[in-house]
Amino acid sequence: MKITLLQIDKTQDAWLNEGIAQYLKRLGNYVSFEIVTINMPKNARQRTEAEQKGEEAKLIFAKLQSSDVLVLLDENGKHYTSREFSGFIARHQNASVKHLIFLIGGPFGFDEKIYKRADFKISLSAMTFSHQMVRVFFVEQLYRAFTILRGEKYHHD
Amino acid sequence: MKITLLQIDKTQDAWLNEGIAQYLKRLGNYVSFEIVTINMPKNARQRTEAEQKGEEAKLIFAKLQSSDVLVLLDENGKHYTSREFSGFIARHQNASVKHLIFLIGGPFGFDEKIYKRADFKISLSAMTFSHQMVRVFFVEQLYRAFTILRGEKYHHD
Repeated sequence: MKITLLQIDKTQDAWLNEGIAQYLKRLGNYVSFEIVTINMPKNARQRTEAEQKGEEAKLIFAKLQSSDVLVLLDENGKHYTSREFSGFIARHQNASVKHLIFLIGGPFGFDEKIYKRADFKISLSAMTFSHQMVRVFFVEQLYRAFTILRGEKYHHD
Repeated sequence: MKITLLQIDKTQDAWLNEGIAQYLKRLGNYVSFEIVTINMPKNARQRTEAEQKGEEAKLIFAKLQSSDVLVLLDENGKHYTSREFSGFIARHQNASVKHLIFLIGGPFGFDEKIYKRADFKISLSAMTFSHQMVRVFFVEQLYRAFTILRGEKYHHD
């Protein structure tokens, strides 16, 4: 199973990029994982929230195959413990899913069409974090999930 | 009101230190905030979990005044949204609390004596993150809380 993190606009802060790179490297030992960035047109940020989300949705759909399992990282999603999240990953592996895509939206959340297409919604926290910072949370959590599945000692319950 | 983040052992990863420094600087515009690090003796990590937690507890108590309000960042704590967390901060300011201390434990959680002394327990996420990474989550969330209290546009609901 291939896993992709799909994100809107590249990560700006150097420190976040460094943290993400660290986990990307570690994840390479466990799974075929990549981060795919959708670049919004430069003038997009001058439009209304609804227009921005509509534009994002178009660009997101262009990256999706109908067989892809799409998981939104969304504030209103389901809360998992790290162990439950590792179970979520394992279930998709066992069901022979080919491509599991996690999507982090822009600052205003997702367009209605994206919510309709999504297979799952997961919330990393009841708190709101910057959509750039969520990226490093996610890769750490994905790394943790694989160490749990392998029975390694990175994770303490 | 003064706010302190009390942590066990200094932050090792350079990228985390950089992120924390960024939010520390921003927080300086809103509140008297500092990070205080308790350094565990070098040989401590060879002892049992219970011994390590006991040793940590002694060093933590040495930093506390009886009037300090102590908040544990703990997996089994209460979940707040960012807006609720900003309300938590505001209530303590309004109650003329002099010193609000947030404590992040070591990798094994807290000694029973610390749980007994604590006034509140807050969980940043149902997921487990590295206790070093939690530091940058916390400072971002504290910064977010102050922007919410000031009605600034950093936070989107």
